[in-house]
Amino acid sequence: MSDPRTIGIFLFDDVEELDAVGPWEVLSAWCTFWPDDGWRVTTFSVDGQPVTAAKGLRIVPHSSAAEVGPLEIVLHPGGQGTRPLLRDPEHLDRVRAWHEAATITTSVCTGSLVYAAAGLLAGRPATTHWASLDVLAELDPSIEVRADDRYVDDGDVVTSAGVSAGIDMALALVARLVSPERSAEVRRYIQYDPEPPP
Amino acid sequence: MSDPRTIGIFLFDDVEELDAVGPWEVLSAWCTFWPDDGWRVTTFSVDGQPVTAAKGLRIVPHSSAAEVGPLEIVLHPGGQGTRPLLRDPEHLDRVRAWHEAATITTSVCTGSLVYAAAGLLAGRPATTHWASLDVLAELDPSIEVRADDRYVDDGDVVTSAGVSAGIDMALALVARLVSPERSAEVRRYIQYDPEPPP
Repeated sequence: MSDPRTIGIFLFDDVEELDAVGPWEVLSAWCTFWPDDGWRVTTFSVDGQPVTAAKGLRIVPHSSAAEVGPLEIVLHPGGQGTRPLLRDPEHLDRVRAWHEAATITTSVCTGSLVYAAAGLLAGRPATTHWASLDVLAELDPSIEVRADDRYVDDGDVVTSAGVSAGIDMALALVARLVSPERSAEVRRYIQYDPEPPP
Repeated sequence: MSDPRTIGIFLFDDVEELDAVGPWEVLSAWCTFWPDDGWRVTTFSVDGQPVTAAKGLRIVPHSSAAEVGPLEIVLHPGGQGTRPLLRDPEHLDRVRAWHEAATITTSVCTGSLVYAAAGLLAGRPATTHWASLDVLAELDPSIEVRADDRYVDDGDVVTSAGVSAGIDMALALVARLVSPERSAEVRRYIQYDPEPPP
Protein backbone atom coordinates (compact mmCIF):
# COMPACT_ATOMS: atom_id res chain seq x y z
CA MET A 1 0.00 0.00 0.00
CA SER A 2 1.22 3.50 -0.76
CA ASP A 3 1.90 6.04 1.97
CA PRO A 4 -1.19 7.81 3.24
CA ARG A 5 -1.91 11.25 1.86
CA THR A 6 -1.64 14.01 4.45
CA ILE A 7 -4.07 16.69 5.63
CA GLY A 8 -2.32 19.46 7.56
CA ILE A 9 -4.12 21.72 10.02
CA PHE A 10 -2.18 24.96 10.51
CA LEU A 11 -1.92 26.24 14.10
CA PHE A 12 -0.88 29.74 15.13
CA ASP A 13 -1.16 32.05 18.12
CA ASP A 14 -4.76 33.22 18.62
CA VAL A 15 -6.22 30.51 16.40
CA GLU A 16 -9.85 29.99 17.45
CA GLU A 17 -9.92 26.71 19.34
CA LEU A 18 -12.95 25.04 17.75
CA ASP A 19 -11.97 26.21 14.24
CA ALA A 20 -9.01 23.84 14.48
CA VAL A 21 -10.22 21.11 16.83
CA GLY A 22 -13.67 20.61 15.25
CA PRO A 23 -12.18 19.51 11.90
CA TRP A 24 -9.33 17.75 13.76
CA GLU A 25 -11.89 15.58 15.59
CA VAL A 26 -13.76 14.68 12.39
CA LEU A 27 -10.66 14.04 10.28
CA SER A 28 -8.57 12.27 12.93
CA ALA A 29 -11.48 9.98 13.89
CA TRP A 30 -11.88 9.12 10.21
CA CYS A 31 -8.15 8.49 9.65
CA THR A 32 -7.86 6.44 12.87
CA PHE A 33 -10.81 4.14 12.30
CA TRP A 34 -10.57 3.79 8.51
CA PRO A 35 -6.81 3.72 7.80
CA ASP A 36 -7.42 1.82 4.54
CA ASP A 37 -8.95 4.99 3.10
CA GLY A 38 -5.32 6.10 2.79
CA TRP A 39 -5.28 9.43 4.64
CA ARG A 40 -3.61 10.86 7.73
CA VAL A 41 -4.09 14.20 9.47
CA THR A 42 -1.55 16.23 11.36
CA THR A 43 -1.11 19.70 12.87
CA PHE A 44 1.75 22.13 12.35
CA SER A 45 2.82 25.64 13.27
CA VAL A 46 5.39 27.82 11.53
CA ASP A 47 8.18 26.95 13.96
CA GLY A 48 6.71 23.81 15.53
CA GLN A 49 6.40 25.50 18.92
CA PRO A 50 3.19 25.35 21.01
CA VAL A 51 0.56 27.96 20.24
CA THR A 52 -1.73 29.84 22.61
CA ALA A 53 -5.16 29.84 21.03
CA ALA A 54 -7.58 32.79 21.01
CA LYS A 55 -9.37 31.83 24.23
CA GLY A 56 -6.23 30.72 26.06
CA LEU A 57 -5.90 27.00 25.33
CA ARG A 58 -2.33 25.86 24.60
CA ILE A 59 -1.88 23.27 21.87
CA VAL A 60 1.34 21.52 20.88
CA PRO A 61 1.58 21.03 17.09
CA HIS A 62 2.97 17.79 15.67
CA SER A 63 5.64 19.58 13.62
CA SER A 64 6.91 22.79 12.05
CA ALA A 65 5.98 24.01 8.57
CA ALA A 66 9.44 22.96 7.37
CA GLU A 67 9.07 19.44 8.78
CA VAL A 68 5.42 18.67 8.03
CA GLY A 69 6.14 17.23 4.58
CA PRO A 70 3.97 17.33 1.46
CA LEU A 71 0.35 18.25 2.17
CA GLU A 72 -2.41 17.07 -0.10
CA ILE A 73 -4.92 19.17 1.82
CA VAL A 74 -4.22 22.27 3.92
CA LEU A 75 -6.69 23.64 6.48
CA HIS A 76 -6.31 27.23 7.70
CA PRO A 77 -8.46 27.93 10.75
CA GLY A 78 -9.55 31.43 11.76
CA GLY A 79 -9.43 33.43 14.95
CA GLN A 80 -8.03 36.80 16.04
CA GLY A 81 -4.59 35.56 15.03
CA THR A 82 -5.54 35.84 11.35
CA ARG A 83 -5.51 39.65 11.59
CA PRO A 84 -1.69 40.00 11.80
CA LEU A 85 -1.25 37.05 9.41
CA LEU A 86 -3.23 38.64 6.61
CA ARG A 87 -0.84 41.59 6.68
CA ASP A 88 2.28 39.41 6.83
CA PRO A 89 3.83 39.04 3.32
CA GLU A 90 5.89 36.06 4.45
CA HIS A 91 2.76 34.23 5.61
CA LEU A 92 0.90 35.08 2.41
CA ASP A 93 3.81 33.66 0.36
CA ARG A 94 3.67 30.54 2.53
CA VAL A 95 -0.08 30.16 1.98
CA ARG A 96 0.31 30.57 -1.79
CA ALA A 97 3.02 27.88 -1.81
CA TRP A 98 0.78 25.50 0.17
CA HIS A 99 -2.06 26.15 -2.27
CA GLU A 100 0.14 25.46 -5.30
CA ALA A 101 1.39 22.19 -3.82
CA ALA A 102 -1.94 20.97 -2.42
CA THR A 103 -4.95 19.45 -4.12
CA ILE A 104 -7.45 21.15 -1.81
CA THR A 105 -6.95 24.33 0.22
CA THR A 106 -9.55 24.71 2.97
CA SER A 107 -10.36 27.28 5.63
CA VAL A 108 -12.63 27.69 8.62
CA CYS A 109 -14.06 31.04 9.74
CA THR A 110 -11.68 33.97 9.19
CA GLY A 111 -9.03 31.67 7.71
CA SER A 112 -10.59 32.73 4.41
CA LEU A 113 -9.53 36.35 5.07
CA VAL A 114 -5.92 35.16 4.83
CA TYR A 115 -6.70 33.35 1.57
CA ALA A 116 -8.36 36.51 0.23
CA ALA A 117 -5.30 38.60 1.15
CA ALA A 118 -3.10 36.02 -0.60
CA GLY A 119 -5.20 36.34 -3.76
CA LEU A 120 -6.44 32.75 -3.68
CA LEU A 121 -10.11 33.70 -3.78
CA ALA A 122 -10.06 36.09 -6.77
CA GLY A 123 -13.21 35.64 -8.82
CA ARG A 124 -14.36 32.73 -6.67
CA PRO A 125 -17.33 32.11 -4.38
CA ALA A 126 -16.32 31.99 -0.70
CA THR A 127 -17.57 32.51 2.84
CA THR A 128 -16.32 33.38 6.34
CA HIS A 129 -17.60 34.11 9.87
CA TRP A 130 -20.80 36.21 9.69
CA ALA A 131 -19.10 39.17 11.41
CA SER A 132 -16.33 39.26 8.77
CA LEU A 133 -18.34 39.02 5.55
CA ASP A 134 -17.76 42.74 4.87
CA VAL A 135 -14.02 42.41 5.48
CA LEU A 136 -13.87 39.49 3.04
CA ALA A 137 -15.53 41.62 0.34
CA GLU A 138 -13.22 44.54 1.08
CA LEU A 139 -10.05 42.43 0.88
CA ASP A 140 -10.94 41.33 -2.65
CA PRO A 141 -14.04 42.80 -4.31
CA SER A 142 -13.90 40.10 -7.01
CA ILE A 143 -14.96 37.47 -4.43
CA GLU A 144 -18.56 36.31 -4.69
CA VAL A 145 -19.31 36.42 -0.94
CA ARG A 146 -21.83 33.77 0.08
CA ALA A 147 -23.38 34.96 3.33
CA ASP A 148 -25.84 32.10 3.75
CA ASP A 149 -23.66 29.08 2.97
CA ARG A 150 -22.35 26.83 5.74
CA TYR A 151 -19.34 26.11 3.52
CA VAL A 152 -18.47 26.77 -0.12
CA ASP A 153 -16.83 23.98 -2.12
CA ASP A 154 -15.19 25.57 -5.16
CA GLY A 155 -13.17 22.50 -6.13
CA ASP A 156 -9.58 23.16 -5.10
CA VAL A 157 -10.60 25.80 -2.53
CA VAL A 158 -13.18 25.14 0.20
CA THR A 159 -14.10 27.88 2.70
CA SER A 160 -16.40 27.62 5.72
CA ALA A 161 -18.54 29.94 7.81
CA GLY A 162 -17.70 30.69 11.46
CA VAL A 163 -16.12 28.45 14.11
CA SER A 164 -18.46 25.42 14.36
CA ALA A 165 -18.99 25.34 10.57
CA GLY A 166 -15.62 23.61 10.26
CA ILE A 167 -17.22 20.43 11.62
CA ASP A 168 -19.75 20.39 8.79
CA MET A 169 -17.08 21.25 6.22
CA ALA A 170 -14.83 18.43 7.43
CA LEU A 171 -17.68 15.92 7.23
CA ALA A 172 -18.42 17.12 3.69
CA LEU A 173 -14.74 16.66 2.85
CA VAL A 174 -14.87 13.02 4.00
CA ALA A 175 -17.98 12.54 1.84
CA ARG A 176 -16.15 14.04 -1.13
CA LEU A 177 -12.87 12.10 -0.60
CA VAL A 178 -14.47 8.74 0.20
CA SER A 179 -18.27 8.55 0.22
CA PRO A 180 -21.37 9.95 1.90
CA GLU A 181 -21.60 6.62 3.76
CA ARG A 182 -18.13 7.10 5.29
CA SER A 183 -19.00 10.66 6.30
CA ALA A 184 -22.18 9.34 7.96
CA GLU A 185 -20.11 6.76 9.86
CA VAL A 186 -17.74 9.45 11.17
CA ARG A 187 -20.72 11.61 12.06
CA ARG A 188 -22.24 8.71 13.98
CA TYR A 189 -18.96 8.19 15.88
CA ILE A 190 -18.92 11.81 17.08
CA GLN A 191 -22.68 11.52 17.69
CA TYR A 192 -23.26 14.68 15.72
CA ASP A 193 -27.02 15.05 15.95
CA PRO A 194 -26.95 18.64 17.16
CA GLU A 195 -29.68 20.00 19.39
CA PRO A 196 -28.68 23.59 20.13
CA PRO A 197 -30.82 25.18 22.83
CA PRO A 198 -33.33 27.61 21.27
CA MET B 1 -16.94 42.87 42.31
CA SER B 2 -16.29 39.44 43.76
CA ASP B 3 -13.89 36.96 42.18
CA PRO B 4 -15.32 35.05 39.25
CA ARG B 5 -16.55 31.54 39.92
CA THR B 6 -14.53 28.86 38.18
CA ILE B 7 -15.45 26.07 35.77
CA GLY B 8 -12.71 23.44 35.49
CA ILE B 9 -12.37 21.13 32.50
CA PHE B 10 -10.39 18.03 33.45
CA LEU B 11 -7.80 16.84 30.91
CA PHE B 12 -6.13 13.41 30.87
CA ASP B 13 -4.29 11.16 28.44
CA ASP B 14 -6.63 9.79 25.77
CA VAL B 15 -9.32 12.37 26.45
CA GLU B 16 -11.43 12.70 23.30
CA GLU B 17 -10.45 16.02 21.74
CA LEU B 18 -13.88 17.48 20.95
CA ASP B 19 -15.34 16.29 24.30
CA ALA B 20 -13.07 18.83 25.98
CA VAL B 21 -12.61 21.54 23.34
CA GLY B 22 -16.28 21.82 22.30
CA PRO B 23 -17.38 22.92 25.80
CA TRP B 24 -14.13 24.89 26.18
CA GLU B 25 -15.01 26.94 23.09
CA VAL B 26 -18.55 27.66 24.30
CA LEU B 27 -17.60 28.44 27.90
CA SER B 28 -14.40 30.39 27.18
CA ALA B 29 -16.13 32.52 24.53
CA TRP B 30 -18.87 33.29 27.06
CA CYS B 31 -16.42 34.11 29.89
CA THR B 32 -14.23 36.24 27.57
CA PHE B 33 -16.98 38.37 26.04
CA TRP B 34 -19.27 38.64 29.09
CA PRO B 35 -16.89 38.90 32.06
CA ASP B 36 -19.56 40.69 34.12
CA ASP B 37 -21.47 37.41 34.29
CA GLY B 38 -18.85 36.50 36.88
CA TRP B 39 -17.42 33.23 35.58
CA ARG B 40 -14.07 31.95 34.35
CA VAL B 41 -13.13 28.64 32.78
CA THR B 42 -9.86 26.79 33.02
CA THR B 43 -8.34 23.39 32.22
CA PHE B 44 -6.36 21.12 34.52
CA SER B 45 -4.76 17.68 34.59
CA VAL B 46 -3.80 15.62 37.63
CA ASP B 47 -0.16 16.70 37.56
CA GLY B 48 -0.42 19.81 35.35
CA GLN B 49 1.61 18.16 32.58
CA PRO B 50 0.52 18.17 28.91
CA VAL B 51 -1.83 15.39 27.87
CA THR B 52 -1.93 13.44 24.62
CA ALA B 53 -5.56 13.20 23.59
CA ALA B 54 -7.23 10.11 22.10
CA LYS B 55 -6.58 11.05 18.48
CA GLY B 56 -3.07 12.37 19.08
CA LEU B 57 -3.50 16.10 19.78
CA ARG B 58 -1.33 17.40 22.62
CA ILE B 59 -2.90 19.96 24.94
CA VAL B 60 -1.18 21.88 27.75
CA PRO B 61 -3.49 22.30 30.77
CA HIS B 62 -3.54 25.58 32.68
CA SER B 63 -2.73 23.91 36.00
CA SER B 64 -2.61 20.75 38.08
CA ALA B 65 -5.48 19.39 40.18
CA ALA B 66 -3.69 20.61 43.31
CA GLU B 67 -3.26 24.15 41.92
CA VAL B 68 -6.55 24.69 40.11
CA GLY B 69 -8.32 26.09 43.18
CA PRO B 70 -11.99 25.79 44.17
CA LEU B 71 -14.23 24.68 41.29
CA GLU B 72 -17.86 25.66 41.22
CA ILE B 73 -18.41 23.46 38.18
CA VAL B 74 -16.35 20.44 37.10
CA LEU B 75 -16.50 19.00 33.58
CA HIS B 76 -15.21 15.46 32.97
CA PRO B 77 -14.83 14.71 29.26
CA GLY B 78 -14.81 11.17 27.85
CA GLY B 79 -12.54 9.25 25.53
CA GLN B 80 -10.59 5.99 25.69
CA GLY B 81 -8.68 7.42 28.67
CA THR B 82 -11.76 7.00 30.85
CA ARG B 83 -11.38 3.19 30.78
CA PRO B 84 -8.30 3.07 33.09
CA LEU B 85 -9.68 6.01 35.13
CA LEU B 86 -12.91 4.24 36.02
CA ARG B 87 -10.87 1.41 37.59
CA ASP B 88 -8.52 3.79 39.43
CA PRO B 89 -9.64 4.15 43.10
CA GLU B 90 -7.52 7.27 43.52
CA HIS B 91 -9.25 8.94 40.57
CA LEU B 92 -12.69 7.93 41.83
CA ASP B 93 -11.88 9.45 45.25
CA ARG B 94 -10.77 12.61 43.45
CA VAL B 95 -13.98 12.77 41.42
CA ARG B 96 -16.11 12.29 44.56
CA ALA B 97 -14.21 15.12 46.27
CA TRP B 98 -14.77 17.43 43.26
CA HIS B 99 -18.47 16.56 43.30
CA GLU B 100 -18.79 17.31 47.01
CA ALA B 101 -17.08 20.68 46.62
CA ALA B 102 -18.78 21.73 43.37
CA THR B 103 -22.26 23.05 42.68
CA ILE B 104 -22.58 21.25 39.34
CA THR B 105 -20.70 18.15 38.20
CA THR B 106 -20.88 17.68 34.42
CA SER B 107 -19.65 15.14 31.92
CA VAL B 108 -19.41 14.65 28.18
CA CYS B 109 -19.56 11.26 26.47
CA THR B 110 -17.93 8.45 28.50
CA GLY B 111 -17.03 10.88 31.28
CA SER B 112 -20.28 9.65 32.83
CA LEU B 113 -18.84 6.11 33.09
CA VAL B 114 -16.31 7.51 35.57
CA TYR B 115 -19.11 9.20 37.51
CA ALA B 116 -21.05 5.91 37.53
CA ALA B 117 -18.02 4.03 38.84
CA ALA B 118 -17.62 6.70 41.55
CA GLY B 119 -21.24 6.17 42.61
CA LEU B 120 -22.34 9.70 41.67
CA LEU B 121 -25.15 8.54 39.41
CA ALA B 122 -26.90 6.09 41.76
CA GLY B 123 -30.66 6.30 41.28
CA ARG B 124 -30.31 9.19 38.82
CA PRO B 125 -31.13 9.69 35.16
CA ALA B 126 -27.98 9.96 32.98
CA THR B 127 -26.61 9.44 29.50
CA THR B 128 -23.34 8.73 27.64
CA HIS B 129 -21.99 7.98 24.15
CA TRP B 130 -24.42 5.70 22.26
CA ALA B 131 -21.85 2.89 22.10
CA SER B 132 -21.45 2.90 25.92
CA LEU B 133 -25.07 2.94 27.06
CA ASP B 134 -24.85 -0.75 28.07
CA VAL B 135 -21.63 -0.18 30.00
CA LEU B 136 -23.26 2.69 31.89
CA ALA B 137 -26.15 0.41 32.93
CA GLU B 138 -23.74 -2.38 33.93
CA LEU B 139 -21.57 -0.07 36.05
CA ASP B 140 -24.59 0.89 38.16
CA PRO B 141 -27.94 -0.79 37.45
CA SER B 142 -29.72 1.86 39.55
CA ILE B 143 -29.03 4.48 36.84
CA GLU B 144 -32.00 5.43 34.69
CA VAL B 145 -30.15 5.35 31.35
CA ARG B 146 -31.56 7.87 28.89
CA ALA B 147 -30.57 6.67 25.42
CA ASP B 148 -32.33 9.39 23.46
CA ASP B 149 -31.36 12.52 25.38
CA ARG B 150 -28.69 14.90 24.08
CA TYR B 151 -27.89 15.73 27.71
CA VAL B 152 -29.54 15.05 31.05
CA ASP B 153 -29.75 17.89 33.58
CA ASP B 154 -30.37 16.33 36.99
CA GLY B 155 -29.63 19.48 38.98
CA ASP B 156 -26.20 19.06 40.53
CA VAL B 157 -25.17 16.42 37.96
CA VAL B 158 -25.41 16.99 34.20
CA THR B 159 -24.33 14.24 31.75
CA SER B 160 -24.14 14.46 27.94
CA ALA B 161 -24.28 12.06 25.02
CA GLY B 162 -21.24 11.45 22.82
CA VAL B 163 -18.44 13.83 21.75
CA SER B 164 -20.23 16.71 19.99
CA ALA B 165 -23.09 16.68 22.54
CA GLY B 166 -20.83 18.61 24.91
CA ILE B 167 -21.36 21.71 22.77
CA ASP B 168 -25.12 21.55 23.29
CA MET B 169 -24.70 20.78 27.00
CA ALA B 170 -22.36 23.76 27.47
CA LEU B 171 -24.80 26.10 25.73
CA ALA B 172 -27.58 24.78 27.98
CA LEU B 173 -25.35 25.43 30.98
CA VAL B 174 -24.92 29.08 29.95
CA ALA B 175 -28.71 29.32 29.57
CA ARG B 176 -29.16 27.89 33.07
CA LEU B 177 -26.44 30.01 34.73
CA VAL B 178 -27.33 33.31 33.03
CA SER B 179 -30.21 33.27 30.54
CA PRO B 180 -31.40 31.72 27.29
CA GLU B 181 -30.57 35.07 25.65
CA ARG B 182 -26.92 34.82 26.72
CA SER B 183 -26.72 31.25 25.48
CA ALA B 184 -28.15 32.41 22.14
CA GLU B 185 -25.48 35.15 21.96
CA VAL B 186 -22.68 32.64 22.54
CA ARG B 187 -24.25 30.31 19.99
CA ARG B 188 -24.32 33.17 17.49
CA TYR B 189 -20.64 33.92 18.14
CA ILE B 190 -19.63 30.33 17.31
CA GLN B 191 -22.11 30.41 14.41
CA TYR B 192 -23.65 27.18 15.63
CA ASP B 193 -26.33 26.59 13.02
CA PRO B 194 -25.29 23.05 12.22
CA GLU B 195 -25.85 21.60 8.77
CA PRO B 196 -24.41 18.09 8.94
CA PRO B 197 -24.18 16.43 5.54
CA PRO B 198 -26.97 13.84 5.16
